[in-house]
Amino acid sequence: MKIAILLYPGFTALDCIGPYEVLSRLPGAEVTFTAAAAGAVTSDTGFLNVTATRGIDEVAAADLLLVPGGPGDQAVMRHEPTLEWIRRLHAGTTWTTSVCTGALILGAAGLLRGLRATTHWASLEELRSFGAEPVKARAVESGKIVTAAGVSAGIDMALRLVQRIAGDDLARGIQLGIEYDPAPPFDAGSPEKLPGEFVDMLRGVLAGARAARARSAA
Amino acid sequence: MKIAILLYPGFTALDCIGPYEVLSRLPGAEVTFTAAAAGAVTSDTGFLNVTATRGIDEVAAADLLLVPGGPGDQAVMRHEPTLEWIRRLHAGTTWTTSVCTGALILGAAGLLRGLRATTHWASLEELRSFGAEPVKARAVESGKIVTAAGVSAGIDMALRLVQRIAGDDLARGIQLGIEYDPAPPFDAGSPEKLPGEFVDMLRGVLAGARAARARSAA
Repeated sequence: MKIAILLYPGFTALDCIGPYEVLSRLPGAEVTFTAAAAGAVTSDTGFLNVTATRGIDEVAAADLLLVPGGPGDQAVMRHEPTLEWIRRLHAGTTWTTSVCTGALILGAAGLLRGLRATTHWASLEELRSFGAEPVKARAVESGKIVTAAGVSAGIDMALRLVQRIAGDDLARGIQLGIEYDPAPPFDAGSPEKLPGEFVDMLRGVLAGARAARARSAA
Repeated sequence: MKIAILLYPGFTALDCIGPYEVLSRLPGAEVTFTAAAAGAVTSDTGFLNVTATRGIDEVAAADLLLVPGGPGDQAVMRHEPTLEWIRRLHAGTTWTTSVCTGALILGAAGLLRGLRATTHWASLEELRSFGAEPVKARAVESGKIVTAAGVSAGIDMALRLVQRIAGDDLARGIQLGIEYDPAPPFDAGSPEKLPGEFVDMLRGVLAGARAARARSAA
């Protein structure tokens, strides 16, 4: 089971580390963190660097491709060599997956046309510009393409993938292994669960952060 | 808010990346990934390298210290310079925290004597050897020391810390920002939720992995 995880400057770390923690426990899993060029890649906060052990030129195939989101997604959506790499891998994958706004990158690569898909709640409508049908869900499976909602949703998506790939017992075993028995202090993880003004305020903060990132990348 | 996160060979990535994703969104947060020496540090799977931007000699103080778990914990528990660094930072922290078997490292540093604490469910009884009282809980607060349960529990602990540090609204905003609305395919994240034989089998697998790691590190 060859798993390729894309990294790029400005990725959101939990988008890929959540699913990595689950999927790397599949028997025979080999995970390759891959970026436009091999080397350390800085996440969206600027505080965290994860090593891409291979450049995209060195990874010709994978059974499972995972594309994380993050404010750096906009530069990736204009980086044709990376989009071409995604299309090339996708031609041979068993599963092509995204977390959060990684779905917009899959969309920019042309993979979501006519498909149901999801992404971070604040970016859901953007899926339409790639010909996808936005769906508010924790994860959406459209053939071999699975898109997950924002950031932490990748953990749930990965457990479902383990269930599909290796069965219920391994999925349960991995869930118990990472003691994933969620108990957040609030029930506030989805926009329907909070007052509209609060959600709109946060939507504005997130849009501002994305716009600032786009300006600094331009 | 200076946040220091310890890295060491064989750490479990989600133990630190979960809380990092939450805590790095505190206003004014500065996160420093720190290891015995600066440079890339390989996680327990061998597939992931995270950069320690500073060595322990370069980080003299932090407001919040976080110690992750992982099969590499056993070597850290015998590495006196790292234990001394933990004690030195702890003297000045507002919060000293651990995820998973990171609690055993706090224990080896002598910080848990006489305190209630938690860790990964399969290692809970080991806390007694450090004079701590094991508690089965998602997170345990004993004065300024907060210990979380296994791997994914760090996300919940971090949201509670944000609540304590910056209030309910920011904790809710961060939870919505990372869309933490958990929906795993099974309710299997805690040993009470699965058959005893299944839990015992997994306990054996985990103990075997820890023993193998201890032999290879010796």
